[in-house]
Amino acid sequence: MIKRIAGAVETRSRAVVHDGLVFTVATAGKKSPSLYEQTRETLAAIDKNLADAGSHKSRILSATVYITDMAGKPEMNRAWDEWVDMANPPQRACIGAALEADTLVEILVTAAQ
Amino acid sequence: MIKRIAGAVETRSRAVVHDGLVFTVATAGKKSPSLYEQTRETLAAIDKNLADAGSHKSRILSATVYITDMAGKPEMNRAWDEWVDMANPPQRACIGAALEADTLVEILVTAAQ
Amino acid sequence: MIKRIAGAVETRSRAVVHDGLVFTVATAGKKSPSLYEQTRETLAAIDKNLADAGSHKSRILSATVYITDMAGKPEMNRAWDEWVDMANPPQRACIGAALEADTLVEILVTAAQ
Repeated sequence: MIKRIAGAVETRSRAVVHDGLVFTVATAGKKSPSLYEQTRETLAAIDKNLADAGSHKSRILSATVYITDMAGKPEMNRAWDEWVDMANPPQRACIGAALEADTLVEILVTAAQ
Repeated sequence: MIKRIAGAVETRSRAVVHDGLVFTVATAGKKSPSLYEQTRETLAAIDKNLADAGSHKSRILSATVYITDMAGKPEMNRAWDEWVDMANPPQRACIGAALEADTLVEILVTAAQ
Repeated sequence: MIKRIAGAVETRSRAVVHDGLVFTVATAGKKSPSLYEQTRETLAAIDKNLADAGSHKSRILSATVYITDMAGKPEMNRAWDEWVDMANPPQRACIGAALEADTLVEILVTAAQ
């Protein structure tokens, strides 16, 4: 069985659950000019998606963090390091890429339920 | 058991199946200058790969759409929205990235069989 | 149960294992100016991560290769083609993206144990 958790747009889900795996993605709702603030808000959205999917940040397997400016990676890391469950750190990749206007960071997560 | 579905190049597979999960990727075979057309053709290739792997677009869990020009996202979305199974929308991320010459879009999919 | 294999940085793991799936990522430890050399070293790090996680390159399901310069793709492919298990080629995507300074390639892998 596949469980889909609806997001703001009906043509995609903000989280999908199948066979104990959760797939989710988030950006910040409020587009702060600060990468640190956007990362905090994005991670809070990931927390909510995981909770709605019956998972938790301590159960994250893999995360891909897309940021628009690699020079900002320390800012993103500061928010990540404050948020991450130090007893259960995920595998993570940080990639510089173009995102939608005003979005500075987008985070893609695969977690165990 | 791992099932691999051969593609055009022998050093990678166009789809791989393991334990009920399908991993596949596609670009358009014909490099139309239109992102809309390339997206349609890419999604048709995803349909074929999923069928060959015993899956279907209604079973997609997660999709990552790479496009070379974020300004074209509405064009990509138009093709996506016409194609997606509205009853079963995947989690999706859209990322701006460099792709091979003349390729405007590449789509990576994880699906349930 | 989730098994996490610690890397150089305590806020992320270099590999995570769950329910027969392995998630891992690597870059080259030594930042050679040659994409070919960095790809070889990155793939050797992937080999080590997979071994530590109880897997092997013959069990890779999906790989995403990020390179900073798409013009270098043939260099990356040369290292890939020498390394890949031709009897068991993974699904693979190659994406042009920004990476950390001096890093020319980063490889993300999902494998079966």
